[in-house]
Amino acid sequence: MLTLHLLPSVTFVLTKEDIVKEEDQKPSFDFKSYMVQKATTANQALESAVSFRSPIKTQEAMRYSLLAGGKRIRPVLCLAACELFGGQESTAIPAACAVEMIHTMSLIHDDLLAWTTNIVVEENQLTTVFGEEIAVLAGDALLALAFEHIAVSTLGVTPSRIVRAVGEIAKAIGTEGLVAGQVVDITSEGLTDVGLDHLEFIHLHKTAALLEASVVMGAILRGACDDDVERLRKFARCIGLLFQVVDDILDVTKYSKELGKTAGKDLMADKATYPKLIGIEKSWEFADKLKTDAVDLLQGFDPAKAAPLIALANYIAYRQN
Amino acid sequence: MLTLHLLPSVTFVLTKEDIVKEEDQKPSFDFKSYMVQKATTANQALESAVSFRSPIKTQEAMRYSLLAGGKRIRPVLCLAACELFGGQESTAIPAACAVEMIHTMSLIHDDLLAWTTNIVVEENQLTTVFGEEIAVLAGDALLALAFEHIAVSTLGVTPSRIVRAVGEIAKAIGTEGLVAGQVVDITSEGLTDVGLDHLEFIHLHKTAALLEASVVMGAILRGACDDDVERLRKFARCIGLLFQVVDDILDVTKYSKELGKTAGKDLMADKATYPKLIGIEKSWEFADKLKTDAVDLLQGFDPAKAAPLIALANYIAYRQN
Repeated sequence: MLTLHLLPSVTFVLTKEDIVKEEDQKPSFDFKSYMVQKATTANQALESAVSFRSPIKTQEAMRYSLLAGGKRIRPVLCLAACELFGGQESTAIPAACAVEMIHTMSLIHDDLLAWTTNIVVEENQLTTVFGEEIAVLAGDALLALAFEHIAVSTLGVTPSRIVRAVGEIAKAIGTEGLVAGQVVDITSEGLTDVGLDHLEFIHLHKTAALLEASVVMGAILRGACDDDVERLRKFARCIGLLFQVVDDILDVTKYSKELGKTAGKDLMADKATYPKLIGIEKSWEFADKLKTDAVDLLQGFDPAKAAPLIALANYIAYRQN
Repeated sequence: MLTLHLLPSVTFVLTKEDIVKEEDQKPSFDFKSYMVQKATTANQALESAVSFRSPIKTQEAMRYSLLAGGKRIRPVLCLAACELFGGQESTAIPAACAVEMIHTMSLIHDDLLAWTTNIVVEENQLTTVFGEEIAVLAGDALLALAFEHIAVSTLGVTPSRIVRAVGEIAKAIGTEGLVAGQVVDITSEGLTDVGLDHLEFIHLHKTAALLEASVVMGAILRGACDDDVERLRKFARCIGLLFQVVDDILDVTKYSKELGKTAGKDLMADKATYPKLIGIEKSWEFADKLKTDAVDLLQGFDPAKAAPLIALANYIAYRQN
């Protein structure tokens, strides 16, 4: 079910250059150091979460995918949301690892689907390296491990909060989350009548749902009140959709070499995207509206504690890849 | 890790006929009515657990597999374990549904693997009906729904018990449970040096782990003490292994027509089985030992409350299919 309608009523034209200029004038926050520190924490926790288990082949496959690097945006969002309410890293780190496990699982099963339907996948993808059987099973094991990790490794937190966190992340995966987005995405390919509502449904489910779970779990585990949890939920849905709008824009505006992936692949795959439906300029305007809405939702929180989430929203809006 | 070594030191020969005769002398318990009542409760709860969600195609696929019928042994075990400690059906029914969802997910992904590796699967399997993409995603959605269902629908239970239950079922799925059994099973096909320990590892993980989670969750949700939980854990591992030993025996002793499946399929698939490793007679003796051990573990509980679990152990030992 869609509960947010984020499409903008556009009244002015803002170019990408204007947005970047505006960003330069923001108060300084050492975002890079923050990201490096949090990603390092997440990487260490993930490394130890997938150690010393058997049987070896699944273990190897899980480590291969989970520890392949990446910006760890989801874990960082989870930790930043917990810290917004004065929480410690230790409170939210199992949940932060769990969202990365789910994200990795979704990539593994996505690649598997591409592989089985003869779409060319990159050489180093898990299915190519380990085969289909291990790809299915390693994905299943990561999904289960995510829940085990939250339930067993979250220490010093009131159990009712852990139960709520489990409910949040579970819902973000299934037929009201990630899977819903994937199914509608798959069944929409090649359709000529995909509108903005339809596209928003796909992105809110396929991309935003897990970002929402990351942020909301961080808040819940620290004991944020229901109103604050709901404000952060809206914030996460804005940046989730923002992430995808910018991805769509980058897909058509960047060259393969710069992106390190095949630019224009969504165009090639005959997929609906924001630039295709409303054009590049209006896509940038929509991105700016989403970013502004997201940042506005953080008004009223301690500015120092909200700085990482604001910086993350800006990063998602202005990233180059 | 194997923590149980259940292989018997056989000192006498007991035929299947002797065992059935012994069963006839047991005090009466209306097992059939009990199973029908509990399975009906589970079916109703499962039906409402997969209603009214979107998108339609995944929903359809989940309902197709989950509501296809079956004996619902895992949910019944969960409810019976809860009732052993004086609990109500309502306490354990979300967990009971969750184990059936996980079981169904494992069947879907198993069939998918058989399908992708060109092993003939039955015509009505989900992969054949809905295709590979939906098979992967419906399995993922069922796995997530299992956790969501425990977390959101378990009412009137201390949250710390729910967290423990989540940890138990999650562990039963991953690299220390179901997935471990599946991986070792897959990688063992065709090997000539599969011994009893190896076979026991496969069955304890692929079959017993989920039965263990069913029973243990039922006990935990009702607040059983740690000692009782551990006794029930051993009971479940005995009946889990028993289930598989009897399955192996039935596979080679029954004709296709009676079983409604291809008898001797494990033999054909060049898989290790108990009859292949120790012969039919010793397989029956082992089955009897496991059944006796299981029943002995229930000594000391209220006999009326333990009757369903004892009857389930007998049913698993003496079933004809």
